[in-house]
Amino acid sequence: MYFRNDYSETCHPAILEALAAQQGVRSKGYGEDEFTAKAASTIRRLAGSEDLSVHFLAGGTVSNLVAISSALWPHEAVLAAETAHINVHETGAIEASGHKILTVSTVDGKLRLQDLEPILKIHQDPARVKPRMVYISNSTEVGTIYKKAELETLSAYCREKKLLLFLDGARLGAALASPKNDLTLTDIAQLTDMFYIGGTKNGALFGEALVTNLQMGEEMPRLIKNRGAMLAKGFVPAIMFERLLETAGGDKAEQVEDTLYFSLAAEANRYAFSLADLFTSRGFTLTWPAESNQIFVTLPLPVRDYLAANEVVFEVDHETDEQAVCRFVLTATTTAAEIDQLEAVLEGALEAVSEGALEGTSNGRF
Amino acid sequence: MYFRNDYSETCHPAILEALAAQQGVRSKGYGEDEFTAKAASTIRRLAGSEDLSVHFLAGGTVSNLVAISSALWPHEAVLAAETAHINVHETGAIEASGHKILTVSTVDGKLRLQDLEPILKIHQDPARVKPRMVYISNSTEVGTIYKKAELETLSAYCREKKLLLFLDGARLGAALASPKNDLTLTDIAQLTDMFYIGGTKNGALFGEALVTNLQMGEEMPRLIKNRGAMLAKGFVPAIMFERLLETAGGDKAEQVEDTLYFSLAAEANRYAFSLADLFTSRGFTLTWPAESNQIFVTLPLPVRDYLAANEVVFEVDHETDEQAVCRFVLTATTTAAEIDQLEAVLEGALEAVSEGALEGTSNGRF
Amino acid sequence: MYFRNDYSETCHPAILEALAAQQGVRSKGYGEDEFTAKAASTIRRLAGSEDLSVHFLAGGTVSNLVAISSALWPHEAVLAAETAHINVHETGAIEASGHKILTVSTVDGKLRLQDLEPILKIHQDPARVKPRMVYISNSTEVGTIYKKAELETLSAYCREKKLLLFLDGARLGAALASPKNDLTLTDIAQLTDMFYIGGTKNGALFGEALVTNLQMGEEMPRLIKNRGAMLAKGFVPAIMFERLLETAGGDKAEQVEDTLYFSLAAEANRYAFSLADLFTSRGFTLTWPAESNQIFVTLPLPVRDYLAANEVVFEVDHETDEQAVCRFVLTATTTAAEIDQLEAVLEGALEAVSEGALEGTSNGRF
Amino acid sequence: MYFRNDYSETCHPAILEALAAQQGVRSKGYGEDEFTAKAASTIRRLAGSEDLSVHFLAGGTVSNLVAISSALWPHEAVLAAETAHINVHETGAIEASGHKILTVSTVDGKLRLQDLEPILKIHQDPARVKPRMVYISNSTEVGTIYKKAELETLSAYCREKKLLLFLDGARLGAALASPKNDLTLTDIAQLTDMFYIGGTKNGALFGEALVTNLQMGEEMPRLIKNRGAMLAKGFVPAIMFERLLETAGGDKAEQVEDTLYFSLAAEANRYAFSLADLFTSRGFTLTWPAESNQIFVTLPLPVRDYLAANEVVFEVDHETDEQAVCRFVLTATTTAAEIDQLEAVLEGALEAVSEGALEGTSNGRF
Repeated sequence: MYFRNDYSETCHPAILEALAAQQGVRSKGYGEDEFTAKAASTIRRLAGSEDLSVHFLAGGTVSNLVAISSALWPHEAVLAAETAHINVHETGAIEASGHKILTVSTVDGKLRLQDLEPILKIHQDPARVKPRMVYISNSTEVGTIYKKAELETLSAYCREKKLLLFLDGARLGAALASPKNDLTLTDIAQLTDMFYIGGTKNGALFGEALVTNLQMGEEMPRLIKNRGAMLAKGFVPAIMFERLLETAGGDKAEQVEDTLYFSLAAEANRYAFSLADLFTSRGFTLTWPAESNQIFVTLPLPVRDYLAANEVVFEVDHETDEQAVCRFVLTATTTAAEIDQLEAVLEGALEAVSEGALEGTSNGRF
Repeated sequence: MYFRNDYSETCHPAILEALAAQQGVRSKGYGEDEFTAKAASTIRRLAGSEDLSVHFLAGGTVSNLVAISSALWPHEAVLAAETAHINVHETGAIEASGHKILTVSTVDGKLRLQDLEPILKIHQDPARVKPRMVYISNSTEVGTIYKKAELETLSAYCREKKLLLFLDGARLGAALASPKNDLTLTDIAQLTDMFYIGGTKNGALFGEALVTNLQMGEEMPRLIKNRGAMLAKGFVPAIMFERLLETAGGDKAEQVEDTLYFSLAAEANRYAFSLADLFTSRGFTLTWPAESNQIFVTLPLPVRDYLAANEVVFEVDHETDEQAVCRFVLTATTTAAEIDQLEAVLEGALEAVSEGALEGTSNGRF
Repeated sequence: MYFRNDYSETCHPAILEALAAQQGVRSKGYGEDEFTAKAASTIRRLAGSEDLSVHFLAGGTVSNLVAISSALWPHEAVLAAETAHINVHETGAIEASGHKILTVSTVDGKLRLQDLEPILKIHQDPARVKPRMVYISNSTEVGTIYKKAELETLSAYCREKKLLLFLDGARLGAALASPKNDLTLTDIAQLTDMFYIGGTKNGALFGEALVTNLQMGEEMPRLIKNRGAMLAKGFVPAIMFERLLETAGGDKAEQVEDTLYFSLAAEANRYAFSLADLFTSRGFTLTWPAESNQIFVTLPLPVRDYLAANEVVFEVDHETDEQAVCRFVLTATTTAAEIDQLEAVLEGALEAVSEGALEGTSNGRF
Repeated sequence: MYFRNDYSETCHPAILEALAAQQGVRSKGYGEDEFTAKAASTIRRLAGSEDLSVHFLAGGTVSNLVAISSALWPHEAVLAAETAHINVHETGAIEASGHKILTVSTVDGKLRLQDLEPILKIHQDPARVKPRMVYISNSTEVGTIYKKAELETLSAYCREKKLLLFLDGARLGAALASPKNDLTLTDIAQLTDMFYIGGTKNGALFGEALVTNLQMGEEMPRLIKNRGAMLAKGFVPAIMFERLLETAGGDKAEQVEDTLYFSLAAEANRYAFSLADLFTSRGFTLTWPAESNQIFVTLPLPVRDYLAANEVVFEVDHETDEQAVCRFVLTATTTAAEIDQLEAVLEGALEAVSEGALEGTSNGRF
């Protein structure tokens, strides 16, 4: 019952096969090869625009770092949710590139206009940094997703205020494959200035595809290399992305929904919703809505401890004296057996509670 | 006849097999897994010290960037040869981390005391940066290697002058496997403060193993993440390095010479010396001594052009109006047939010269 | 009635006289002169320690920038109050040097252990920056001051947790000269790792004296120059500081209380308390306690507008739909006449309110 | 006989008078005051353009740092002479802002097209930084000045190659007041993209006026503050510059030649040429042409030592086993008596040489 994260395994077998199929093929380095050109072309087709610049990088943090530091002037800042990956899980990588992150408290990890307006207003003061970019994640760090109307509103606002809009797509597959999603890759390409398609957390050995429609395409290779982020074998992530963005069967995909990338994410989401049901049907509260492959449940500490003691692997986002917000991450390699096992453990926890056997509960309640 | 570089193919088949063998195995992220622990332990054994901190990074530039910026205070600089990778092929990545590179002209890409002394002397002036680290590459960017006595001298000088010594081992395999080499991995670990073992250019899909005996081991994970360089799936390069540093047959290696890593590099070197012989036996001059898998030949422009026109792929390091310094890089996947073909092309070039058929030559001479 | 700030005039006349007295004297540059040595010695005497390194810089932001970036490793962060100058009034200068500011909400601009503990706890996670320094201001940005017991508690905690403690003394004079103060300069030197004595806001043309007892004294000149902060004529601020830290009459001062620096600050404070009394005696609420030369009053918007319309110059820190937090800054050059005039205007405002003549008030109330 | 540098004294008496004249006047901070507006307007008038943005900074290094880092993208570099101040006397401040300095060896401290072309050519390689700005100093670090034709050629080339041209004017006064000069302030404003007028080394207590015609005027205050370089009392350097750029008698100047700034520089230059004559008339060689207030003389070591032993204060730029390149800097406060004394010492040196009394000379020769 391993729900710790979605980067705990090497990759989907088809990826290794795709790499093996190119054994002995020689290509130019630094992304100037034909695999890169082809995978970039595939992404342009799926995103509905010939004007996109595509670059393959090793991971999420470095993609955020390159995107943000390339687009901002020294005195400019990026706006983000307090829960944003760049704010809490990148060990200061954005600040190390010289830029302040202005954070906003949100209800569900998503930025809304009313969150942005007050902070923009006080930053008209020239003694403060100049807000110049809005960073969002889709799916967010708390598993929620942006609806098309929300992204349209945000995009229009950013354009009015001359703010660049950057979408961290480390878990873009999970967002696109969510049953609640109504955004297409084309929408995202049109509504944002930069985004990336995350491979590390959805089938690849590693790799993210950074996509930009800013007028900086020609400068990007140097900007990437300047951050130490240019891969000598740029064709390696390109081969992987090409495989992920073909159909599951290996043919050319006409839309994201036809791809292995999508089908892996959809599978992860299905397990996620099953797991969410296990909890809600037993009276537990989801901390945030179940919309993608990350499920957050607010559990009484004794229940949390019971699960942890019974081989359920998950992370605790934060906790109080009484309860913990627990994160369960599902992937395409989760098994139905794991869900069944979790159900049994959960039943065991409830039984223990009703018998008053769990320390910290009384009268069979929590 | 592809001699452009040593990062033009995916990886050795055994690497994909090693990755495939771990299909479905779940590990912790960010280098906190057992594969990383095991590969680090293997490196410590081969390098003869339990006190080494080992971290796996995606590539050479980012390894240089992390190593240098982690060890230096803001006002401190790194000394390097003018030909150093950090000086000419990293698009300013070291300066982007805030540090000046002080360069020294060398005869063969190797730093010697007489190169360092004058620059150290003038930098006693507090209006100048403080030299604090010496960067060397082994093998160097021009294919030469450091002998043990040279590294000992340099190391002793650095310790006397309180300079850290950092060795870029992007092509460390080629150096160790050179017939002219007398350095062991243990020597390198003892004589330097930091070094890395390059995987990208010697069998791996990607990856370098950064090794340090500085007292900064505990801080390294954060320092790496702060540069965007922490791989979520740290176990991927670890699995690859473990395979490279086993014996070629897959057993535990007791010394570097027993490993697949060494045998691949030795094979590349053998092709390199064959290629060097082709040129020298026909009267061409090696620009720098043939000591590892990179061969530099100074060719008259017409010969250079003839080769390029006859499907010989190589790079030109620099050129004058009359001749070009041409780089040929050999790898374990070079074939004997390629060397034979090159010989034939070279014969053709000489014949054309003797017939006066090559533009820019006259009277059959160059 | 000018209460906008404490850096609106050139300097105290004695400062220009001190500069004029050195007309034609030639000194070495870059702080290697005798004026600098003497002023540094004076500060060491007043701060009770021979082990302090003293450097004179041009202003507050650059002093913060040099102090913080010199002491931190790239992945390390500084903890500060949300209201901290480095967080809101330096246009991202600290982040531009590569470091994240971790902010804490406070009741009165002062950091307390209970503010720091939760943030330290969550930052044990290596995916987060490493907290390494605590930044405080004395007096704070909201005019409050640290009592000796508070600073002792904070200092002991920092030493236990291996956090450096840095005190921004842009308005240190106002703090030391506060009737509520019980800290000496010696206390501050002993309880902090770095601090500075602000000249710009208390009598000098410009300049701050950065004092550190860290073992970095020898490196400081280069660290300062590396940030562009080394003044060619280092003797200019040194001459000014020497004058400020003599007795008001020009003799050698044995303690801060004897100095022109102290007497100017005390005068500013006296005006501040008079102004605070004007407001509180008329039923207005001080936003934060009146402890130094900055007074914050929460005023109904109509009263704020009335004052502004009647030639009272002040700044609005922030406002809601109903009231504004207004900042009044007093200096040694404030005049009794200005206070009297303000009283008259304030009476006028109250009268207008009672007559219902102020838009936004009704029934003579607010 | 003090020829060490031109920043060894406080300031011209008229500067302190100008500051004293504003005693008690209250102004807004951060350069938003009327003194700043007026001095900026004066500079625009003298430089012949209403489109210039003018900002007053504390010193030369910080002006270079702000100018360069504000105009460049992260992967862009600045081209400069090897002798450039930014390369050898700023302790890595430019690199600390993230940018590589590409240096060029020159004959006399001045950049010429033939110096730039080869370096531009090799930097078309995207693995190298992108050259984007050319940095020159006028007068240069070796005392030479740019003629109008030279600056026109350089400017045209930069515009063709899309390189920004930045002129460090730390000693711009000495250049403009040189009898060999044919450039006006208007020429400089038209031919460069950014430049500054140095006050520190020509009469002011401190301060440089950074002038730009780039489209970044609106962003400059934040860019300056982001580097810690915004002076709270921006009016202080403004008052000083207004005084320097009035006529020597205090009236409005119509051209630079009418100003105190010019007359001080011209006076320094006159002493410089006298000093140069002293040396050349006695057979010594000027290292570089005598064109402004810095004179470099190549002296045999015994003569250098004799001068130093006889109270002549100067700096040694660099030395060999036999001779030293000695720098003599003249200012408006140099006295005729000092020049006469130097002549006497020099005569003494020559006499000692002819008597064979100087160690290291033989037979009365050197």
